[in-house]
Amino acid sequence: MSKKIILDCDPGHDDAVAILLAVGNPEIDLLGVTTVGGNQSIEKVTYNARAVLEKAHATNVPVYRGAGRPILRPAQAAASIHGETGLDGVELPEPSRPLEEKSAVQFIIDTIMSEEPGTVTLVPTGPLTNIALAARLEPRIVERVKEVVLMGGGYHVGNWSSVAEFNIMVDPEAAHIVFNEPWKVTMVGLDLTHQALCTPEVQKKIEGVGTDLAQFVSGLMDFFRLSYSQNQDFVDPPVHDPCTVAYLIDPSIVQTRRCPLDVELNGTLTWGMTVADLRGPEPAEDECHTQVATKLDFDKFWALVEDALRRIN
Amino acid sequence: MSKKIILDCDPGHDDAVAILLAVGNPEIDLLGVTTVGGNQSIEKVTYNARAVLEKAHATNVPVYRGAGRPILRPAQAAASIHGETGLDGVELPEPSRPLEEKSAVQFIIDTIMSEEPGTVTLVPTGPLTNIALAARLEPRIVERVKEVVLMGGGYHVGNWSSVAEFNIMVDPEAAHIVFNEPWKVTMVGLDLTHQALCTPEVQKKIEGVGTDLAQFVSGLMDFFRLSYSQNQDFVDPPVHDPCTVAYLIDPSIVQTRRCPLDVELNGTLTWGMTVADLRGPEPAEDECHTQVATKLDFDKFWALVEDALRRIN
Amino acid sequence: MSKKIILDCDPGHDDAVAILLAVGNPEIDLLGVTTVGGNQSIEKVTYNARAVLEKAHATNVPVYRGAGRPILRPAQAAASIHGETGLDGVELPEPSRPLEEKSAVQFIIDTIMSEEPGTVTLVPTGPLTNIALAARLEPRIVERVKEVVLMGGGYHVGNWSSVAEFNIMVDPEAAHIVFNEPWKVTMVGLDLTHQALCTPEVQKKIEGVGTDLAQFVSGLMDFFRLSYSQNQDFVDPPVHDPCTVAYLIDPSIVQTRRCPLDVELNGTLTWGMTVADLRGPEPAEDECHTQVATKLDFDKFWALVEDALRRIN
Amino acid sequence: MSKKIILDCDPGHDDAVAILLAVGNPEIDLLGVTTVGGNQSIEKVTYNARAVLEKAHATNVPVYRGAGRPILRPAQAAASIHGETGLDGVELPEPSRPLEEKSAVQFIIDTIMSEEPGTVTLVPTGPLTNIALAARLEPRIVERVKEVVLMGGGYHVGNWSSVAEFNIMVDPEAAHIVFNEPWKVTMVGLDLTHQALCTPEVQKKIEGVGTDLAQFVSGLMDFFRLSYSQNQDFVDPPVHDPCTVAYLIDPSIVQTRRCPLDVELNGTLTWGMTVADLRGPEPAEDECHTQVATKLDFDKFWALVEDALRRIN
Repeated sequence: MSKKIILDCDPGHDDAVAILLAVGNPEIDLLGVTTVGGNQSIEKVTYNARAVLEKAHATNVPVYRGAGRPILRPAQAAASIHGETGLDGVELPEPSRPLEEKSAVQFIIDTIMSEEPGTVTLVPTGPLTNIALAARLEPRIVERVKEVVLMGGGYHVGNWSSVAEFNIMVDPEAAHIVFNEPWKVTMVGLDLTHQALCTPEVQKKIEGVGTDLAQFVSGLMDFFRLSYSQNQDFVDPPVHDPCTVAYLIDPSIVQTRRCPLDVELNGTLTWGMTVADLRGPEPAEDECHTQVATKLDFDKFWALVEDALRRIN
Repeated sequence: MSKKIILDCDPGHDDAVAILLAVGNPEIDLLGVTTVGGNQSIEKVTYNARAVLEKAHATNVPVYRGAGRPILRPAQAAASIHGETGLDGVELPEPSRPLEEKSAVQFIIDTIMSEEPGTVTLVPTGPLTNIALAARLEPRIVERVKEVVLMGGGYHVGNWSSVAEFNIMVDPEAAHIVFNEPWKVTMVGLDLTHQALCTPEVQKKIEGVGTDLAQFVSGLMDFFRLSYSQNQDFVDPPVHDPCTVAYLIDPSIVQTRRCPLDVELNGTLTWGMTVADLRGPEPAEDECHTQVATKLDFDKFWALVEDALRRIN
Repeated sequence: MSKKIILDCDPGHDDAVAILLAVGNPEIDLLGVTTVGGNQSIEKVTYNARAVLEKAHATNVPVYRGAGRPILRPAQAAASIHGETGLDGVELPEPSRPLEEKSAVQFIIDTIMSEEPGTVTLVPTGPLTNIALAARLEPRIVERVKEVVLMGGGYHVGNWSSVAEFNIMVDPEAAHIVFNEPWKVTMVGLDLTHQALCTPEVQKKIEGVGTDLAQFVSGLMDFFRLSYSQNQDFVDPPVHDPCTVAYLIDPSIVQTRRCPLDVELNGTLTWGMTVADLRGPEPAEDECHTQVATKLDFDKFWALVEDALRRIN
Repeated sequence: MSKKIILDCDPGHDDAVAILLAVGNPEIDLLGVTTVGGNQSIEKVTYNARAVLEKAHATNVPVYRGAGRPILRPAQAAASIHGETGLDGVELPEPSRPLEEKSAVQFIIDTIMSEEPGTVTLVPTGPLTNIALAARLEPRIVERVKEVVLMGGGYHVGNWSSVAEFNIMVDPEAAHIVFNEPWKVTMVGLDLTHQALCTPEVQKKIEGVGTDLAQFVSGLMDFFRLSYSQNQDFVDPPVHDPCTVAYLIDPSIVQTRRCPLDVELNGTLTWGMTVADLRGPEPAEDECHTQVATKLDFDKFWALVEDALRRIN
């Protein structure tokens, strides 16, 4: 039985790959894509989400626009990584399916309240604003959600500051809300996603799929490689967001460790940091509702991406 | 022409008086009462709001339940001031009108988006959670609201800490959001409301109205006097919340001063403090969208309350 | 019997007046002047202290150089108020007495440890760096000091931010240390010192003393008036620092109120604020070691200053 | 030529081993031991330092008492690790050499100002209070010190909180001062010292030295093993402090990496954390004055300790 997910994202090059993996893998039932201001403005990332779905012929997937700004702090974008459009480096098709009227937050609430309890997984790959607002507006969603598998944070690694990651740093209050609600949370952070490098070998395999879509993904990776080498001292770009979807498709791809997890809101140097308590032995499942992703099966991960691209056509 | 308001409250003894003033004064068109967890739990204050309206024969006024907890921090109640029920000291009638199905936040958004722009005033007398969530979910309400007149904070006075007031301290992040949106905000804080003391003379006049409702209000005041003398070193209790409504009915009752206004979120001793910059001359109206209430016309204020109680019957 | 004081200052126009009041009043036994970086660099204020003493023919008073920077935060000066030299607007005589070799902190410790316990009063009118360092290096001084009477802070008024005063804001950690040690602390803050305005009438009286020194003080006041009108929206300049010395000479000049007092170190808007808890009745003397100055006897204050200027000659 | 060091410590079981390594190794010229409140009260750790030197027949080494409390925050001890005496588990000899009269801070200042510039290394293995106070009282020591090699902090590991280490957390303001002065700082943190485990094999070798002193060290390790297994989920205890001395004796024992390094003072979850920026390539020596220890040569380290114990007799 396939897994119902809502993908809450801000495409973004790696968000685009996450969408394609969700669309192209038969284990995933993508109920909808919701958008959130992050990598670029809400207008841009919402357009991008629709265009990527168009590119993947997935016009059956509805898109809902979400929060244009963080709960508390001023918005900031990651133009240095994703360019002015949020998806620089490729040409996007005109989306044929209109944007839904309902707001992202309302869609998240309505879906979770109407679907069978314990069946819907939230997969946020941008700032956690929508998820946090939904939990505050309708607290009953928390016990009805199956789990939250998010890309963000890092227990030993930062990118937007020494110790903080972009998605969390953009809206740390939202992240604080999400991490502290008693649902199951898996943080797929930089410790994991910095293993998901798109090496030249990987990119060659993607290109080998031979479709227009594969070429599109390769174009995304070209731009991403350039951004990451120029701004973050990487040789190959880490393709963060699809790691969440890959984990849901096949948990053996991502090793995890349970640990208390919280978000620092006040530090001068550390605000936006995800603070994991990794001291001592791993707590039992009923004592700890949060876990971090630790180790990626690189080959399996990229094989899944390649497979999804092959299937879409 | 009467003023359309939404009263967002957490009754609460003084909230009850604010409701009665809004119901009993012909200048006020009370579109609805929304509730928020604060003085007591959301269940209790929602019941209280409905019961107070019942007591005032105002079953035409709908009540919408709002946020049960602050955006970020754990909930706290003011049982030391308002008792276990939130309205200790009086007997409440059973509300005949059912609670509305719509949420408080949705009602606020829908009302502001459907009424003529610039006609609806928000009057929050509890924590600002609902107002802040509404502004985040539908940012367009900010330019459509006429103004926000809130009870909370203080520029020189605190009650829940040395320098912070209860409503703001309960949800400082919400207050931060409300104070920083570019709508007109009037903060009716403790500096003003500590002038609105229910002296024995005032209470005698209220009783002199001679109705069951007036007796009810006097009962509220008896309990309030006791709470304030035992917990806050007051002789007569300050009746905070109706000062907002009185200001809307007759602005000459409350003197104000424009000044930059913000909320401290991080201080060890000062979190939840409303920080007003009162240095230098008063800024011009187009340079500053926030103002603080400074001086109350005591006699006019209580005359309004008495008048409202007389009219309700 | 005269009162032994150590004046710890950063002259500074009003510090200069404090020095002159201490030198010229027979009730004060000025054991030494210690300097601290604040209004200007430690080099400049140390020179100024020596020059002011020279001007007052007080070459019997030793000067000790103290901390050039705050304990934790980067130094900042108040050039907008005191000019580039720290005493702009007048000509200073060349000091004839050399600077002492001992450091300010060591002088403070040695003096307090060698004088009779309970006889030496510390009078800081700049950042509290020296006093805090002395208390940490030799904790026994705390119980041997008679009292600390400091200029700084404010319970309702700020000048360097909305709610913080310069001396405290420059070194809030030092102030935190001083306020939290169990010695008696009197905070002569802006609430008080903004009453000590050098009006034209006052200045005329000072000039009426007719000495070169009086002319010097009047010159200081001319510059101070200009600074305060251009940078702080004052008509007449508040002459903060001598209020401390005046209080020691004649406590009836300054009304005080005991209250818990602390310094905010972490707030975004409030760091450096002195937080006074003025709720409820005044605590008893044995329950509270801190007090704030509230009301100045304007005439008596300026009469003391005038008197001191007359005596110096 | 041997290296002149001042060992600033709070013995403490691992501090004791650091003292013995400094005493017993011919490369080290131990100018003095200064003490600081940390693992236990200043009285206890000062006694312990003297007793350990007595045990090592090193009565030529003077001991100076330092700060009994952190600069800003209340003192806290590590009784759960080091017991009530700070050196529980062994019997201490009565020290024959009296405590020096001079304070630790004064000794540090005087030594650095009188020795040849660039020749004295500071080796703090407790809270950094003394070092920070010395730098504030006599700023010229900063450019005269050869380097600071300290035990404390961790870039990925905490022990007193999820992300902070005891020595830094006890006095984070002092650490902030030390890390931000422009001297060369090597942080030997938990990332390194958790590699310095006293395994049963190691302890057997120590016992094999066959002296009373070796037996004493073994007794220390017995208690330390118990503490760490009961309170920190360790099998073998990490012997933190001598890693600093070992690095000075033979830098090849400890690998290091230059990186910007600072201390978080304000975070709710992260205060006291040492924040290292490990992103990107290692900065050049002239661009970065701070470095962290990363990898220990376990065998060489313990061989040095064993060797020192053999030499002392």
